[in-house]
Amino acid sequence: MLANLIAPARHIRRPLGQCRFLHVRGPKTVVLGSGWGGFQLMRDLDKNHHDVTVISPRNHFVFTPLLASTSVGTLEFRCILEPVRRKNNDIKFYEATCDAIDPVTQTLSCTSSIEGSPTQFTVPYDKLIIAVGAESNTFGIPGVKEHALFLKEVKDARKIRQRVLDCFEQASQPNVTEEEQRQILHFAVVGGGPTGIEFSSELSDFIRDDLRKLYPHLVDQVSMTVYDVAPTILSSFDHHLADYAVKRFQRRGIRIRTRTHITEVTERELLVDGKYRVPYGMLVWSTGITETPLVRSLGHHQVAKDPLSKRLLTDNYFRLLSADEKTPIPNVFSIGDCATIQGYNLPATAQVATQKGKYLGRVFNRVQRYDNWSLNDEKPFTYNHMGSMAYLGGWNAAATNGTGVATKAPGFKITDYISEGHMAWLFWRTSYFT
Amino acid sequence: MLANLIAPARHIRRPLGQCRFLHVRGPKTVVLGSGWGGFQLMRDLDKNHHDVTVISPRNHFVFTPLLASTSVGTLEFRCILEPVRRKNNDIKFYEATCDAIDPVTQTLSCTSSIEGSPTQFTVPYDKLIIAVGAESNTFGIPGVKEHALFLKEVKDARKIRQRVLDCFEQASQPNVTEEEQRQILHFAVVGGGPTGIEFSSELSDFIRDDLRKLYPHLVDQVSMTVYDVAPTILSSFDHHLADYAVKRFQRRGIRIRTRTHITEVTERELLVDGKYRVPYGMLVWSTGITETPLVRSLGHHQVAKDPLSKRLLTDNYFRLLSADEKTPIPNVFSIGDCATIQGYNLPATAQVATQKGKYLGRVFNRVQRYDNWSLNDEKPFTYNHMGSMAYLGGWNAAATNGTGVATKAPGFKITDYISEGHMAWLFWRTSYFT
Repeated sequence: MLANLIAPARHIRRPLGQCRFLHVRGPKTVVLGSGWGGFQLMRDLDKNHHDVTVISPRNHFVFTPLLASTSVGTLEFRCILEPVRRKNNDIKFYEATCDAIDPVTQTLSCTSSIEGSPTQFTVPYDKLIIAVGAESNTFGIPGVKEHALFLKEVKDARKIRQRVLDCFEQASQPNVTEEEQRQILHFAVVGGGPTGIEFSSELSDFIRDDLRKLYPHLVDQVSMTVYDVAPTILSSFDHHLADYAVKRFQRRGIRIRTRTHITEVTERELLVDGKYRVPYGMLVWSTGITETPLVRSLGHHQVAKDPLSKRLLTDNYFRLLSADEKTPIPNVFSIGDCATIQGYNLPATAQVATQKGKYLGRVFNRVQRYDNWSLNDEKPFTYNHMGSMAYLGGWNAAATNGTGVATKAPGFKITDYISEGHMAWLFWRTSYFT
Repeated sequence: MLANLIAPARHIRRPLGQCRFLHVRGPKTVVLGSGWGGFQLMRDLDKNHHDVTVISPRNHFVFTPLLASTSVGTLEFRCILEPVRRKNNDIKFYEATCDAIDPVTQTLSCTSSIEGSPTQFTVPYDKLIIAVGAESNTFGIPGVKEHALFLKEVKDARKIRQRVLDCFEQASQPNVTEEEQRQILHFAVVGGGPTGIEFSSELSDFIRDDLRKLYPHLVDQVSMTVYDVAPTILSSFDHHLADYAVKRFQRRGIRIRTRTHITEVTERELLVDGKYRVPYGMLVWSTGITETPLVRSLGHHQVAKDPLSKRLLTDNYFRLLSADEKTPIPNVFSIGDCATIQGYNLPATAQVATQKGKYLGRVFNRVQRYDNWSLNDEKPFTYNHMGSMAYLGGWNAAATNGTGVATKAPGFKITDYISEGHMAWLFWRTSYFT
């Protein structure tokens, strides 16, 4: 009776070599995480030589640079998602979080992260790659965790979209004074890095282009503020670009408050510099990252960590280092935002994580494919900076290319060190879409 | 500083006659609800002669016949939504529910339905149209409200999509036996009306076309069952069409269990006919409708209600009837699923609600525009059945046209009383899209 439902479709037959039902002879390679680093590695690993298992609380990869765009509806959520399972039937995937690693028995303790089904299980490994990323850092400021929104996952973007619309609906209710409307329609962004700036730009576009048509009676009451503790926004960019961004934001009516500390957050107010109370309708928090629970559970007596950023320390082959002698822990690797190379600190960006994942995939494949070839026969990893970009709203972007590195986008080359305006915007979008 | 953000855009200027800032001379016309009836009426009302306010807990109209398609991702959610405010700047909209109606002072008590902001307010009316729709009927069966999913709103469709994927992920976890996989991947639909049948068809397509590629190891364990208490599914359709649907479902491996009662629901099991326990992974409940809290709050001593369906009773002009003498309550009207005409009972469908909304808009406009013209100068409402349709999966649909009524779809005419297969599918889709 179920024949029609279950008969295999022609077009999903795989070549024999990739068939998951064949016994795979390679090492049991477990990747924790499905972000930039883990997803890249998972794709690149030769499945004929690796028995790959991915464990991650989300069964999809998120194209994070466009998350801000989905939060205001410029893009659909599904456009920036790539299911881990798609085109990857030759791997195993468990929707779960890893709670503990036992490097002696080489076993992981995991908890399923499916709603309403928190079962626990263990998974053995021959090689383990920790690519669990990082969490938003609230710096322990009271009220942030409870009242702020973040921009890490698709569900965060969905919440932001809903909150913006809720604010406009709330301000439209009868008996709401103009003063209250201004408070409800004050959108605050804490963190002037690329994520905070891009989100502010997208939100400003959304209000100018879409919401003003739906709520013409409210546009006069809208305001946006970006707060940062640093003396400037986009501090990782060239200062010409940061200045350009500031000018553009001023023209668009977005306030920038640098050298400013948010010291407390309540349901409706920010406490600024411990003195001023500023009412807000929505607060988006984007001030940097901190360790995940798994990385926290790996104590300082077990593994080496960067004391400031709390990231795991690896060598140039991404082998996790032990706490005492700073020697590699056997068969455990770490890439992405959760780790940094000892003596070669790189920023926690998608670009770095991707290059680390690519490197490790290439090296692992060679080690498995060739006899008498080991990790030590490989050159250590070096990072190749391809440039930085940030969308500034109104179809403008700021971009820098890597120093001395050729960067290309279809149809034109960015040969200047700095590129501003429409060309940069095109570059920004095409860099990802091609 | 905010100049750029708030300066009015050229293209949203309205002709003077529609400007919301002009004083409107017409009656304060309040529409409760933004479904098929309320949305149609709101659009049709002449805003030069009516001061229109819409009060609804959702700020958008949902194209409900395609809700099943969004639940499995055939369509994006936003494709089936139409914001109440879009192109309607000449109305007021409050995102709120009406809790009580005072017909003596002609005042409504409302509670804002924005998350985290449950403020209360009152709204006066000159004319009131109750179009609040209906809720899913659980018939008081224990466990349904807690464990079943419904298919009324976009958030329901989103929950269903998530639950289906969760079931597949849960069945993919390690240590899950084949028996457990079969239980988790049993999708149960209670209710064999058009909604339940269309949802089953869409889900079956989704599993066959999409999920089998992502979860090839699980397709053998999937099963679907449609339960109905009636002797047949699609009982409102011609029996030839119902038979056709049954045959198609059998070919697709979907079990149909008619004359079957679900007597209790627990987190993982259905109790069938009080005897058999059937495990399930997801349960979608679609067995009909019942009154909303507002309609319930209008007691039997105040207003006339149909004793069986509990729908409000109106006359042929949609005037709400009082409980005692069955005379119209002044200035209160009711259309859509929440009401039915005394002695002229029509099914609770989108088609009926739309025609009621259209009729009322036309009549209200004439009453306001012409001197010496009142409701009694109008012909009473008569319903014009345009046919019924249901999607059956695999690009097939069942359609009947109204008896003796010409129905057209672009490029061809359906002149037979019954149409089956691909032509009917085309008809089904084009009926809405054109």
